[in-house]
This record gives sequence, C-alpha cells and structure tokens, in this order.
Amino acid sequence: MKKGLLIVNTGDGKGKSTAAFGMVLRAWGRGLRVCVIQFIKAETGQWGEIKAAKKLGIEWHTTGDGFTWTSKDMDETTARALNGWEIAKGKIASNQYDLIVLDEFTYALHYGWLDTSAVLDWLRLNRPPSLHLVITGRSAPEALIQQADLVTEMLLIKHPYDQGIQAQPGIEF
Amino acid sequence: MKKGLLIVNTGDGKGKSTAAFGMVLRAWGRGLRVCVIQFIKAETGQWGEIKAAKKLGIEWHTTGDGFTWTSKDMDETTARALNGWEIAKGKIASNQYDLIVLDEFTYALHYGWLDTSAVLDWLRLNRPPSLHLVITGRSAPEALIQQADLVTEMLLIKHPYDQGIQAQPGIEF
Repeated sequence: MKKGLLIVNTGDGKGKSTAAFGMVLRAWGRGLRVCVIQFIKAETGQWGEIKAAKKLGIEWHTTGDGFTWTSKDMDETTARALNGWEIAKGKIASNQYDLIVLDEFTYALHYGWLDTSAVLDWLRLNRPPSLHLVITGRSAPEALIQQADLVTEMLLIKHPYDQGIQAQPGIEF
Repeated sequence: MKKGLLIVNTGDGKGKSTAAFGMVLRAWGRGLRVCVIQFIKAETGQWGEIKAAKKLGIEWHTTGDGFTWTSKDMDETTARALNGWEIAKGKIASNQYDLIVLDEFTYALHYGWLDTSAVLDWLRLNRPPSLHLVITGRSAPEALIQQADLVTEMLLIKHPYDQGIQAQPGIEF
C-alpha cells in the first residue's frame, strides 16, 4: 500500500523545519513537485533555505510577519496566518504537487489563530490521496497527531546557546 | 562567540539524516563548502538525496556496503567503516570545508568498528575551530554526546509502517 503521508515534526528540539527541508531536497532530487509555505517567518531573503530554494527553482512562500513570543500586533499576525492557510488550501486542493510543507504551521493552531478541528476536517476532505503533507512546529495539537501518519518529536538534549554560542548562518538559518 | 559546532542527531525516530541534509541545503544556499560522507549506505545512485547532491555539485561519498542488522560479512563492513573514517579524517583536517556530515557514523562507534575514544581524541585535536561537523545515527555513544555542542534526539511518536504503508520514494529515501 502506497499513499501520501501526513507527517508532523514537533517538539522543542532542533531539526523540525530542517528535516522538512531535507525532504524537500530529496523530493527535488527525484523530480517531484514541491511547494513550501512558511507561516511564521517574514520574507527577508536572508535565510539559507530560501536562498537555496530560489537557486533550485522550488516554489516557496513566506506568509508570516516574523511573529515572536513578544509580538505586539496580534491582529496582523492572525490575519497573516489566515492568509497563509488560504494559500495552502489552494496549493493542496490543486493536486499539482507531490510534497507540500507547511512550516511552523502548528503555531497557528496552538495559538488559536486557526481552528484546529476545521483545519483537520478540511484536510480530511481535500488532501489528494497521493500528496505528502509535512507540518512542522512546536506544540502540535493532539488532534493533529491523531490524524497524522508519521509523527516525530525532536527533543533537545544539549544546546550551544547554553555555552553562549550564537546561532550560526548556514547551520541554524 | 562564533565557532564550528559538533552536532549530533540521534534517536530511534525519523529525521536524523534528513535534518542533516536540510542543513546541507541551507549551507549550500549560502555558498558554504559542504561535504557528506555516508557510512552505511552503499552507492546505488537511487537515493533522492544523492540525486539532488549530484545535481547541485555537492561533494558526497558513500563508503558503506549497505550494512543491516542481518549482514553476514562483518569483515567487509568493518573495513569499509575504517576506510570511510580515513576519508573523513582527510576532509576534516584539510580545513577546506565549512560543513561536513558523517551520516550514520554512530553505528561505526556503537558496534565497535571504530574506537570511540580514539575518534573523539582525534576530533578534539584536528577539527578546525570553524568547521561544523554533523554526526547522525541511532545509539550515539555517551562520550560523543558529552563532546558535542548541539544534540537532538529524534523520537518516534507514530510510524506509518504500523499501518502497513511502505516507505515512499522522495520522502524516506
């Protein structure tokens, strides 16, 4: 039996988005049709993965406003999440892709910017059976995990910030 | 403070190698000098990540013989691991790279094909301070985790094999 998988990378550790980008690379290597939609990051063009996607001609959308835990303008953040989900629905329902990544999408669910049940119902009805859909981010809702085929939790065992080392370009972003 | 990181992706879940490949993509996007050495996989040319690396011109070595838990010829497997480590030492000591991935290298340590203390001593003395070195695989030895800067454990929460779904090309390989 072969079918498109609903894949979730969650947890507080590193590698959730990075593993999704590794899947993008692998799928691109096989000539599959790939689309990435990022929900939190703002378009700055300064991310290594976005630079790479541009060079490779991979379709890549940044729909966020750089939301952080200290963001003030939640109306803007919520509006952008709703807009990102509209873009994602169009791409998913189009049946023109083999792999779609919704990067950091769990935050939109966890913080209630989108209704988790409505999103999961929509996916159940509209995700093409052959489409692999990858959702990343911390705090994946339990209902999403229930619906998913493959769930990995990235656990932080040791982190260099603890040693006072900064995030490194090309490695962490 | 900026410095090259010793990064370990371990655990029984998915995404250890895939996150390393995502880092490769990100680093390649920034024009960094990258090299991947795979310790278990045999060269078949059929892996999505190898196809991608060839298209991108990323230096990629497969040094294994496809070792599995049922392999019979352990002399061959061990000899290949020793040879892979010699290649890795040459690349690391050359100071010609920004990021080197030793994919599935933990098995060579865990199964004793290489001596963990000797490997860690060599890395302590010979890894260029600016080089990011990523080591992946299950069962990372405790001494490796001690020496590493960034360690993530990938935990399996849910796997599609349990539903009788096969591994999918472009997603899992």
